[in-house]
Amino acid sequence: MRSFDFQPIGIIHSCYTEKFGIPRQPGLVMAASATLELYAPYDCPEALAELQGFSHVWVVFVFHQTVRGEWKPTVRPPRLGGNQHVGVFASRSPFRPNPIGMSAVMLEDIQCHNGHCQLILRGSDLLDGTPVLDIKPYLPYADALPGARGGFATQPPENGMTVVFGELASIQCAAWERAQYPGLRQLVEQVLQADPRPAYRIGREDKQSFGLRLYDIDVKWVVHGNRTEVTTLLPHKNEK
Amino acid sequence: MRSFDFQPIGIIHSCYTEKFGIPRQPGLVMAASATLELYAPYDCPEALAELQGFSHVWVVFVFHQTVRGEWKPTVRPPRLGGNQHVGVFASRSPFRPNPIGMSAVMLEDIQCHNGHCQLILRGSDLLDGTPVLDIKPYLPYADALPGARGGFATQPPENGMTVVFGELASIQCAAWERAQYPGLRQLVEQVLQADPRPAYRIGREDKQSFGLRLYDIDVKWVVHGNRTEVTTLLPHKNEK
Repeated sequence: MRSFDFQPIGIIHSCYTEKFGIPRQPGLVMAASATLELYAPYDCPEALAELQGFSHVWVVFVFHQTVRGEWKPTVRPPRLGGNQHVGVFASRSPFRPNPIGMSAVMLEDIQCHNGHCQLILRGSDLLDGTPVLDIKPYLPYADALPGARGGFATQPPENGMTVVFGELASIQCAAWERAQYPGLRQLVEQVLQADPRPAYRIGREDKQSFGLRLYDIDVKWVVHGNRTEVTTLLPHKNEK
Repeated sequence: MRSFDFQPIGIIHSCYTEKFGIPRQPGLVMAASATLELYAPYDCPEALAELQGFSHVWVVFVFHQTVRGEWKPTVRPPRLGGNQHVGVFASRSPFRPNPIGMSAVMLEDIQCHNGHCQLILRGSDLLDGTPVLDIKPYLPYADALPGARGGFATQPPENGMTVVFGELASIQCAAWERAQYPGLRQLVEQVLQADPRPAYRIGREDKQSFGLRLYDIDVKWVVHGNRTEVTTLLPHKNEK
């Protein structure tokens, strides 16, 4: 059978440096910004002419950290608690025959310097290092189908956790904000409001400490009922 | 640079057997139905489980009839009359670095026989023979962005032509409908309402006869002002 070969036109730089904790769809964590770096020759201003009039773009990308294993016809979406199986084509799971993803994200800015351009995106759900295959304008009249029925995924995931910062975490966060990452506190809050713990733990009393990485920061937290307490934000230690 | 290799999971069978006349976005010609034939092993009922709850699906496909020529940063969209240039990434043109397309189309039915399934789609804008790379459920909460701003393409193309059938065309159309293609008349009407003539001819008085192919039928018409008259629907003659 004929196959098709595609080369990336660019790459994503984002705060999501590991898969764990990434919001399950775009638009859920609006504090997350990402940069789409275009490769030459696609980084010229001409290729982006008139794009600034669109509020949102589609990013078509490759789920590059998804190892292609044996073909499986079903997946267990986290939205259904991770137990129920649905067909892979009824899901947006990265584990699919062709690991192509698409995200509608807000286009915040187009920045060009010396003839080389990049896009600044907001509310992205893309992993740092994601290879980008295409950018398309979001066309409300063709893409926004307000009457569409959403099957088992009719509502956005709930952002039900109240997030507080412990004393140490507050001091550490303020230091990171001054040094390198303005807006970090809001980003951490929005990511943890969605309760990224595995589905089987949600609703449980949990003594365990959890962690995820944003940029090069290891964020640790504990959960008491519906309350998430951030405990530390330390530099990520490379395990190699 | 790393490249990515994808194999089709299926193929489109549609009434649009040539590019000319295809509506410029899905959902404009709702009389058009298409079949998405899945290839083994992706044609099993398990891979489609729970998809029937979604009213619409994304079809991710390859613009297979678009010859990859030299890279050009701009295109001239028909929506802007075919004269004005915009960046390729501000357009949905098939002429793009990676010729990947995506269409949100209505999922009319899922048909399975002896363990082999196909999707019946409505309002599709896909060329017959289009290779399909992926099917994803349309998620209203993530994909329908009612507040999005549409740049230069804020409104659907106008379907401004009044379509009438000449006497001969009426007889021929009725015969095609009885023999093989029920609903053909409505399909021809909807396709021609969009006035598929090249942009530079639109608004002109035009003595010329135009033609396009639907299924294996050559449809001919003439234009008087805002009135399109279908003249004949004859079997397509293969030019080979």
